[in-house]
Amino acid sequence: MFAGLNTPRLILDADRLERNAARMRARCDALGVILRPHLKTAKSADVARIAANGERGPITVSTLAEAEYFAAAGWRDILYTTAIAPTKLARAHHIQREHGARLLLVLDDRKTAAAMGEAAATLGARFGVLIEVDCGEHRSGTEPASEELVAIAGAIAACSPYLELMGVMTHAGHSYAFDDPVPIRALAEVERNAAVASAELLRTRGYPCPIVSVGLTPTLVFAEQLRGVTEVRAGIYLFCDLSQLSRGVCAPEDIAVSVLATVIGHQRRGAVPSLILDAGALALSKDVGANRFMPNAGYGLVCDAATLEPLGSLTVVTVHQEHGGVPVPDESWFESLPIGSVVRILPNHACLTCAAYASYDVLRGGELSEEWPRTSGW
Amino acid sequence: MFAGLNTPRLILDADRLERNAARMRARCDALGVILRPHLKTAKSADVARIAANGERGPITVSTLAEAEYFAAAGWRDILYTTAIAPTKLARAHHIQREHGARLLLVLDDRKTAAAMGEAAATLGARFGVLIEVDCGEHRSGTEPASEELVAIAGAIAACSPYLELMGVMTHAGHSYAFDDPVPIRALAEVERNAAVASAELLRTRGYPCPIVSVGLTPTLVFAEQLRGVTEVRAGIYLFCDLSQLSRGVCAPEDIAVSVLATVIGHQRRGAVPSLILDAGALALSKDVGANRFMPNAGYGLVCDAATLEPLGSLTVVTVHQEHGGVPVPDESWFESLPIGSVVRILPNHACLTCAAYASYDVLRGGELSEEWPRTSGW
Repeated sequence: MFAGLNTPRLILDADRLERNAARMRARCDALGVILRPHLKTAKSADVARIAANGERGPITVSTLAEAEYFAAAGWRDILYTTAIAPTKLARAHHIQREHGARLLLVLDDRKTAAAMGEAAATLGARFGVLIEVDCGEHRSGTEPASEELVAIAGAIAACSPYLELMGVMTHAGHSYAFDDPVPIRALAEVERNAAVASAELLRTRGYPCPIVSVGLTPTLVFAEQLRGVTEVRAGIYLFCDLSQLSRGVCAPEDIAVSVLATVIGHQRRGAVPSLILDAGALALSKDVGANRFMPNAGYGLVCDAATLEPLGSLTVVTVHQEHGGVPVPDESWFESLPIGSVVRILPNHACLTCAAYASYDVLRGGELSEEWPRTSGW
Repeated sequence: MFAGLNTPRLILDADRLERNAARMRARCDALGVILRPHLKTAKSADVARIAANGERGPITVSTLAEAEYFAAAGWRDILYTTAIAPTKLARAHHIQREHGARLLLVLDDRKTAAAMGEAAATLGARFGVLIEVDCGEHRSGTEPASEELVAIAGAIAACSPYLELMGVMTHAGHSYAFDDPVPIRALAEVERNAAVASAELLRTRGYPCPIVSVGLTPTLVFAEQLRGVTEVRAGIYLFCDLSQLSRGVCAPEDIAVSVLATVIGHQRRGAVPSLILDAGALALSKDVGANRFMPNAGYGLVCDAATLEPLGSLTVVTVHQEHGGVPVPDESWFESLPIGSVVRILPNHACLTCAAYASYDVLRGGELSEEWPRTSGW
């Protein structure tokens, strides 16, 4: 079914994608929260439509380039979840004005709020703002439910009407340190509590806080309840990958993206024989986030191109820029996978793997149907 | 000088680039070999012109997308150095015919030679071919100066006139295991000898072998002599990076590419305070090839944006998709690098870092002058 295609190439199984999307929508309905899908992995309007069951609902992005792309494609309610610097406001303003979108911006610093207010006033721009609180990852965010949080809210309120405080958000990225539902569930509660307690404090002090935003795929999958949360962000559930699989967050048959690669060599001269693929460090990325809990994941799991069933336990163990080395138990593999044959590789970390490609080749019912473009850059 | 630019962004210092290019040309003149620059790092016609001092001489590429890009831009003598599969010949033929270029293809397998001959005959195409020999890296290539090599040459000759044997090539990638000129020089000699002995055997058996091709930047920098070699491939010398610096292959002031990034956060809640940059795993890549010999290189060295002087010994220690975390000794760094200020990051491995960007912002005499596009994908 892949004859005549250039490789390496990014394949997206739309049936799996739709199943993943529907499952997370149902989960969010059950949890009583709005799903604001994070599109930093997919970077595709076609995927975004499937995430929201055909609608252009609220979305999350990680770059202003994504914000611009989705705004141009008709999305109106866009949370840009990487903390903004005041120097980026002119571009954010342009995106809002040019496309009639509304950007929600994130900050975690009092001085930044004041500088943003000044910049917004100069531009004549208005932005909704979420304050990021740090629920323990220490990547970004201020202390939850703290006087510093209240001070940031005050600094934002002082910039009215140019800045409007819309709520709080947090991200329990430290949940990736576990592959056991029990601690992930505990961190989901830590994440929920950090956001909800922050929102409650702000409301007590007279600041409105309509949005209480948490989440990433693992905490949403395992959370016991999300009372007080209004909306959640997650993205990788749409595609899944070995990083999610290794943490028990998805099943193998949920992984919707794979890299089509060609066997370009049979190497007999190393310690063990190896297949050489035309998918290396650029085609797969050098992310090995799955390997903490799946030590043999290598740079990806090698599968039959047609069925996506794993070929034994073959993985891409070495990568050079354009070469991937796959050790095989014996040279009989060279007979079943001659030079010129193709395989598909399940990615270690789909966010980084997908970033190398300009488009998806879309499978439906096992047949290639369309090509969906994706955006990139900043 | 970088006010108003979106970040992250790839900056190329053309003065450093020109110096690096001139030095390698002089080195190759001294060694008596033709330089066929490898453009897998730069992926840019503007850089390629500087590499060859304004000419469109012989070049090396790692993908057919690069071959197509350079052929369309007027290059005529293109070595595609990743082993070809017969399934890719139609595209290679198209590139030759559409653009009047000549592709040199690489293979290391007897059956592949026969299959390529058949495919070329069906297409009515003619290709020059190099046989790859394995000088010890075991990535790809057949045994140097072996009967198997002679058999592959025979298989190619049997496909005349569709395939024309043009010579041999090899690549001592295992030289990256050292940061000492002595073993790198020894491996340069192993690499030279593998190629030259292979060419001599083929000539003895009646096969022409006009091209004897070796090299990568470290072996070319340290080789004592290259007698019998006709041409060399190297690419990273044009840009350099921490991987080269850590192996003693370049000086800090040779590094010509850097990533311009904005400070978007001051994190006080971790074990140590950290600057948060808007350059993370996508903007820098997750390659840490420098860290074998420069354990504190992190994902890149943080420098003053204007002067490119290192800021203390600050490095990007953690990366998320769009966040880079830079631990700082104390919070006084938050005063000197407020939110919204910019820094430049010297990349750990430039080949992978550059791949995330669609263009270079070019500095000349310390001033931004042009934007040079780069190609990507496959």
